Amino acid sequence: MAHVSIIGTGNMAQAISSIVTRGGNTVELFGQSDHAQAITGDIVILAVNYPAVDDVLTQRAGQFDGKVVVDITNPLNIETFDSLVVPADGSAAQVIAGKLPNSRVLKAFNTTFAATLASGEVGPLATTVLIAGDDGDAKAALAGIISAGGLKAIDAGALKRAREMEAVGFLQLTLAASERISWTGGFGVVA
Amino acid sequence: MAHVSIIGTGNMAQAISSIVTRGGNTVELFGQSDHAQAITGDIVILAVNYPAVDDVLTQRAGQFDGKVVVDITNPLNIETFDSLVVPADGSAAQVIAGKLPNSRVLKAFNTTFAATLASGEVGPLATTVLIAGDDGDAKAALAGIISAGGLKAIDAGALKRAREMEAVGFLQLTLAASERISWTGGFGVVA
Repeated sequence: MAHVSIIGTGNMAQAISSIVTRGGNTVELFGQSDHAQAITGDIVILAVNYPAVDDVLTQRAGQFDGKVVVDITNPLNIETFDSLVVPADGSAAQVIAGKLPNSRVLKAFNTTFAATLASGEVGPLATTVLIAGDDGDAKAALAGIISAGGLKAIDAGALKRAREMEAVGFLQLTLAASERISWTGGFGVVA
Repeated sequence: MAHVSIIGTGNMAQAISSIVTRGGNTVELFGQSDHAQAITGDIVILAVNYPAVDDVLTQRAGQFDGKVVVDITNPLNIETFDSLVVPADGSAAQVIAGKLPNSRVLKAFNTTFAATLASGEVGPLATTVLIAGDDGDAKAALAGIISAGGLKAIDAGALKRAREMEAVGFLQLTLAASERISWTGGFGVVA
């Protein structure tokens, strides 16, 4: 059984929490400013907005060592909604990994809207979570939690593929914000 | 009725040609090295691999003026299959648009595999073609041809969104090449 810590209490955090517990695994949720309690999970999900990540890493410095840390962010420029705030040849996940040299960082959940994580469905398709990372065991552990919770998981390759996953997430957000797609739809994966 | 010129005779060119004619529009196909005949279509689809585009633009210099030019490429580094060969903050479509100042350049068809263009289906979903570009009339004309041919089309925004569309295409290609998904599947769009 896995024990998962989720930092954040928004729609994404709630949806991921349900997936974890539905699969028979355990979860603890922390508010993003709630630094009093230590993290006890082996897998930590950073379910806060990208601008809040730095504060979480600073306030909880050292607590991520030895753990699998999952970045779910879409690092949009929220003023323009027209670009990302991370290096064009990189990703938020790689930036975060650079700040957590003693953790195994994964990118996941950023290409699925909260509604499709909660329902397990993107239209007629089962919701598929893409996972990028450089540690195969960490990816397999997260994939196991996701599939136990009733969703599909696909290994999307090395952590550098987070660049492309963040582009997928960004494009999907712009399509929903401009009402070309619904917040209950988006990109589904047909294997 | 629209008249469409397709440069290229591969799987993608054949699939797009079928969509065009199925919708009651007309098409002409040219081999990528067949520069003898002039382009007669109002919409020109560059259905050649990205490294071949420059030669087509040079050999047919001036023939694209005043036309809608559709870039369908995924500009992969085919030696590493691990990066794109265009600027990280740009796209092949924007590079091509820079070389065709008298054309209206669109990005389309690069997020759908040839098989899903040919069948009109990505699993249980109708195949959706994303279209990016800075000219609304040009996008509407292409969308009309696609929907007349039985597929769905979605306006994905300005031409700069081609960066994200090429990331989608790149990720999808790596997933298929690593057998995480099938060449008959990939990303579907649930509106």
